[in-house]
Amino acid sequence: MVNLTQSRLALIGFIGLGNMGAHMARNLIKKGHELVVYDVNNQSVNELTKFGAKSSESPADLAAKTQNIITMLPSHPHVNEVYLGKKGILETAQKSTRCIDCSTIDIEASKRIANLCAEKSVYFNDAPVSGGVKGAEMATLTFMVGASKTDFEVIKPFLECMGKNIVHAGDMGHGLAAKICNNMLLGISMIGVAETMNLGLSLGLDKKVLAGILNTSSGRCWSSEVYNPVPGVIEGIPPSNNYEGGFQSGLMAKDLSLAQNASVETHSSTPLGSMAYNFYKHISNQGYSKKDFGYVYEYLRTKKN
Amino acid sequence: MVNLTQSRLALIGFIGLGNMGAHMARNLIKKGHELVVYDVNNQSVNELTKFGAKSSESPADLAAKTQNIITMLPSHPHVNEVYLGKKGILETAQKSTRCIDCSTIDIEASKRIANLCAEKSVYFNDAPVSGGVKGAEMATLTFMVGASKTDFEVIKPFLECMGKNIVHAGDMGHGLAAKICNNMLLGISMIGVAETMNLGLSLGLDKKVLAGILNTSSGRCWSSEVYNPVPGVIEGIPPSNNYEGGFQSGLMAKDLSLAQNASVETHSSTPLGSMAYNFYKHISNQGYSKKDFGYVYEYLRTKKN
Amino acid sequence: MVNLTQSRLALIGFIGLGNMGAHMARNLIKKGHELVVYDVNNQSVNELTKFGAKSSESPADLAAKTQNIITMLPSHPHVNEVYLGKKGILETAQKSTRCIDCSTIDIEASKRIANLCAEKSVYFNDAPVSGGVKGAEMATLTFMVGASKTDFEVIKPFLECMGKNIVHAGDMGHGLAAKICNNMLLGISMIGVAETMNLGLSLGLDKKVLAGILNTSSGRCWSSEVYNPVPGVIEGIPPSNNYEGGFQSGLMAKDLSLAQNASVETHSSTPLGSMAYNFYKHISNQGYSKKDFGYVYEYLRTKKN
Amino acid sequence: MVNLTQSRLALIGFIGLGNMGAHMARNLIKKGHELVVYDVNNQSVNELTKFGAKSSESPADLAAKTQNIITMLPSHPHVNEVYLGKKGILETAQKSTRCIDCSTIDIEASKRIANLCAEKSVYFNDAPVSGGVKGAEMATLTFMVGASKTDFEVIKPFLECMGKNIVHAGDMGHGLAAKICNNMLLGISMIGVAETMNLGLSLGLDKKVLAGILNTSSGRCWSSEVYNPVPGVIEGIPPSNNYEGGFQSGLMAKDLSLAQNASVETHSSTPLGSMAYNFYKHISNQGYSKKDFGYVYEYLRTKKN
Repeated sequence: MVNLTQSRLALIGFIGLGNMGAHMARNLIKKGHELVVYDVNNQSVNELTKFGAKSSESPADLAAKTQNIITMLPSHPHVNEVYLGKKGILETAQKSTRCIDCSTIDIEASKRIANLCAEKSVYFNDAPVSGGVKGAEMATLTFMVGASKTDFEVIKPFLECMGKNIVHAGDMGHGLAAKICNNMLLGISMIGVAETMNLGLSLGLDKKVLAGILNTSSGRCWSSEVYNPVPGVIEGIPPSNNYEGGFQSGLMAKDLSLAQNASVETHSSTPLGSMAYNFYKHISNQGYSKKDFGYVYEYLRTKKN
Repeated sequence: MVNLTQSRLALIGFIGLGNMGAHMARNLIKKGHELVVYDVNNQSVNELTKFGAKSSESPADLAAKTQNIITMLPSHPHVNEVYLGKKGILETAQKSTRCIDCSTIDIEASKRIANLCAEKSVYFNDAPVSGGVKGAEMATLTFMVGASKTDFEVIKPFLECMGKNIVHAGDMGHGLAAKICNNMLLGISMIGVAETMNLGLSLGLDKKVLAGILNTSSGRCWSSEVYNPVPGVIEGIPPSNNYEGGFQSGLMAKDLSLAQNASVETHSSTPLGSMAYNFYKHISNQGYSKKDFGYVYEYLRTKKN
Repeated sequence: MVNLTQSRLALIGFIGLGNMGAHMARNLIKKGHELVVYDVNNQSVNELTKFGAKSSESPADLAAKTQNIITMLPSHPHVNEVYLGKKGILETAQKSTRCIDCSTIDIEASKRIANLCAEKSVYFNDAPVSGGVKGAEMATLTFMVGASKTDFEVIKPFLECMGKNIVHAGDMGHGLAAKICNNMLLGISMIGVAETMNLGLSLGLDKKVLAGILNTSSGRCWSSEVYNPVPGVIEGIPPSNNYEGGFQSGLMAKDLSLAQNASVETHSSTPLGSMAYNFYKHISNQGYSKKDFGYVYEYLRTKKN
Repeated sequence: MVNLTQSRLALIGFIGLGNMGAHMARNLIKKGHELVVYDVNNQSVNELTKFGAKSSESPADLAAKTQNIITMLPSHPHVNEVYLGKKGILETAQKSTRCIDCSTIDIEASKRIANLCAEKSVYFNDAPVSGGVKGAEMATLTFMVGASKTDFEVIKPFLECMGKNIVHAGDMGHGLAAKICNNMLLGISMIGVAETMNLGLSLGLDKKVLAGILNTSSGRCWSSEVYNPVPGVIEGIPPSNNYEGGFQSGLMAKDLSLAQNASVETHSSTPLGSMAYNFYKHISNQGYSKKDFGYVYEYLRTKKN
C-alpha cells in the first residue's frame, strides 16, 4: 500500500469485467492507477488491455502481482470461486493484501470469505454499489462500505475513482446489509406505487393528477417521484420506454432473495419484503426478468377483458 | 351563493364538530363567515355557539336555514344518517344547496348520496382532508376535491379558510379516490420502512446510519424521511414519544378498509394494500388502535427473547 | 304453504334459470311440484315451459301467483333488482310468502333484503349451494341454510328435491357465512397445494410420489386428495383437462371478494384469504377467469426459461 | 452390514439423544440391536447406557466402532459439526459406512455433507421424521427417505424399528424435500383454518357447526379435521389445552424457513408459504415459540375491545 498512501496511485488488481466492472476498471485507469485484470471471458480482458491494463492468468496469478484487489462479480458462487477456488486469490495472496468486494452477494457468504481471508492476514471488505451501468460509466456510483473506520479511510480514495458517494455503513458486512435493506424497501415501494396507481386509474383518476397528489402528500417516495412505473407519467425513464433498460426485474428478485436470506438468518419479520420477493420472482419466472422492475405495474394492471 | 360570490362571505351550515370539525368550523368563523352548526353532542355545539355560531336542532333544521353546508363525520353510517335519515339534510334542502362532505368514507356510499342529492337538485361534492388535528387547528389542511371544474372554483374559497392546499382531484368521488390511494401507499410504505429498519438493526446497522442511507437512496419515502417509525431516529414525532398522538393505527386500518372496498369494487389487484390492511387491523384488534401508525415497527420488531 | 305441509307438493315460483337454476327448477318439477318461473332471458323461460313450468312476466307477477319463491341469481345487484326493483317481488308479495335465496351474495346485502322483507311479513332465508352445475343436474347439491329451526324444517323438503345435503348453518345470513368461509379456506388450500407441488417438483420430487406423501400426512386437504391441481396427478378432473370445466377462477375470485367484504365488516384478520383473493383476481384480470381454479398451479409454476 | 442382512441385527451408532433421539435409540435396543451412542450432554448418554447402550467419546470415536450410524440433531450447524467438525464422523469413518441423518435441516447443507461423505465412500442418506415425541416413543414415526432404491431397501429395516411408515421419497435430498413440502402446506392450512374459523365466528356461526360444515365440504383439511385450532372444537388436542404440548410454533417457523431457503434456491414462487413463515416467526418473536402451532388462531383472533 506504500504507493497508494504516498502518491495515491497504486497497482490494482481488478477481477470481474462485466457490464459494470469494465467501466469501473476503466475509471481507475483514467484516474492514473495501473491495473492488472482478470475475467473468465477473454474478450473482456482483451478490451481492457487495449485500454492499458495488464492481463493475468488467474485470480491466484493476479494476487501474486498486487496487494490491492477489487472484485465485481455477479453472485456468491463466483465470488467463492475467485477467492477460495483452485487458482483463487487465497492461494497466493500476500499478508496485508487488501481486497474490496463490490459484488452484491449473500451476507453470510461474504462473512465466510472474510473469515478465511483473515486467517491469512488478508483484508476483506464489502463495498456493494448502486447506480447501475450508467453510474459505473460516469463514475457516479454510490458505494456502501462495510469496514472499520481505519480501513474505510484507506479504501475510500480507490472508490472515489469510480463513484461519487462513498458511504461508511459500518463494520464488515454492513455495506451489504445497507444495500440489501435499501433495495428491499425500494422493491416494496415500487409495488406499492404500482398498485396504488392501478387502483387510482381504475377509480377514474387521471394518472398525472394522481401522481402529482401522491408526490405532494405522505404517499410520496422515490418510486413515485422519479420513477413512476406508469408509462407516460415521467418521460425518459424505462417505464415510458416499454420497460427497456433500467434495473432489471430479475436483479431485483436476486437482491430481494438476499434480503430473504438475511431475514431468515436473523429471524426478522419481513412480510412485505417476502411478498415483494415473490412478485419479482414470479415476474421473472413468467419470462420478464429482463424488463425494468417498474414492469410490476404492467403485471398488476387491471386489464379490460 | 350570492353573498359568497359578492363578498366571499356566506352563511355556512357545519355538521360534525369532532376533533377535526370543531377546529374547521372555528376557522370559517375567524375568516368572517357566519355559521349555523349541528352535532349530536350538545357540548360540542355549545362550545361553537360561544365562539359565535348559531345552533340548529337537526340537519334538516340546518338545511332549512342555509344553502351552503359542510359535513365532517367519522364514517359513512353517520353521513348516511345526516343526509338521508329522519330530519336529515335532504328532507328540507332547497334547490341548488351546495353540500361539501369532508368525511373520509366509502366511495360507493358517497356516490349513492350524491345521486340522491342530484335527484333533488342539491350539489354534493367530496373533499376529504389530510393533515390531522393540528392541520385542522392551524388551517393548514390539504383538501382533495371531487367536483366539476366550475364547482371546484365555487367551493375553493370556502376550503381555503380551513386549509392550505386545495387540490382538484377530478370529478365527484375523485377526492375520496385520491385520498384513499395516497393513504394506501402511505400504509404500505410505513410497513416497508418498519420492516427494513428492523432487518437492518438485526443485521447490526446503526439506526441513524441506516436511516441516512435510505434517505439518500432509492428507498427513501415520506415515512423514512419525516416519520421514521424507529424511536429516536427523528425527535419530536410520535414514534419518539411512545407512539402517542399522530395518525392512529385504527384510522389507518379504516382508510385501508376503504381501499379494500375500492379494490373489490374495481377488481384491482392490491396485494400489498391488502396485507397492509390486515396488519393495521390486526394491530387494532390486539388493542393498539390508538397508537400512532408507526407502531407497526414496534409490532414487527425482532424481540430478543 | 298449506299444500306443502299436507301433500309435500306446492306451487313454487322460481326466478333465475341460468346454468344452475334451470337444472334446479327441473328437479323440482320432477319431484312433482308445480312451477311458475321467471328469467330476463326468454329463451331460458321457454325451455322450462316446455318442461311443464308456467311463465310469468316479472318477479312481481310471479309473487302474485305463489307464496313459495326460490331465487338463484349471479350476484347481489340481480338479487336487489328481483326483490326490491320495479316489478320486484316485494311489490306484490303476500304476507307469509316464503322466499329462499340460493344465490351466493354479500351477507350485508342479503340482510338488507331480509329486513325489507320482514317489514312486509315476508320470510326470507339464505340457502347458497355448492356442488356445481353437475350437482345441480344430479340433484346432489349441498345447501347451507340460514334460518330459524322452525323455518329450516319448513324449507328443507323443498331443498331436498334439488340436493343431497341440507345443512342448517344457523340463523338468517349464516348459510352465506358458512359458504363464504368454506370457499375462502378452499381458495387458500388450493394455492397452498399449488405452491407446495411446484416447490416439490422444483426440488426434483416425482409429482405422484409427493402427492401420495402429502395425502398420507398432515398436509393433506381436499385440494390435494381429490383435486390436485398438477396435470396428470389425478385423471378425470379439470387440471388434467387443460383446466377446462370445474370451478372457474373468476367465480372463486367473486366468492373470495365476499369473504373480503365480510372480513372488512367484522374487522377480522384474514391475511391468507386476502392474498388468495388477490391471486384469483389477478388470474382473472390476466384473462384466465374461465379456467378452473386449479389453474393457480399453472400460474405459479416455475417456468424453465 | 453383514450382520444386518443376515440376522437383521447390527451394531448401530446413534448420535443425538434429545427428546426425539433418546426414544428412537431405545426402540432400536428394544428390537435387539446393539447401540453405541454419543451426545454432547453426558446426562443423556448416561441414561442410554443404563438402558444397555455403550458410550463413545466423540462422533469420530463412534465412527471407528461401527459402520451403521444414525444421527438425529436439531439443526444444520449441529449436523455439520458432527460430520465435518473436529473429531467428527468423517475423521474416522471407514469405507462403506452407512449414515442415516434423521435431522430436519436445510437441503443444500445436507447435500454438501453427502458430497463430502461420498468423497470418502461413505453412504449418507436423509430420512427426516414426522410424528413428534409421542411418535418417537411409540415407534410410530413416519420416515421420509431420500435414497436410491437399493439403499432404501437396506435402510428400511433399521427405520422400521423406530417408525410405522417408511416412505421412499426419491433420491438423496428428497426425504428432506418431501418433509419440508408437507410442513409448508401444513403451516399454510393451519393459518387458513385459523382465519376461516375466526371469520366464521365473527359472523356469528357456532364453532362446532362451522367445523362440521368445513369437514364435510371442500375446505376440509388435516388441520380442520383432526387439529382444529379453536379451543373446544376437538377435545384432547393442544388447542383445547391452552396450546401446550404439540408441535411448537418455533419449530414450525424453523421448518418454514427451510422451505423459504428451498424456494430461494429453486426460484419457486411460494407466496403463501412466505406469509406463513412470517406469521410463525412473528409469533415466535413475540414470545410464543413454545406454544403449539395452532396458537395462530389465538394470535389472529378478533378481540373484543
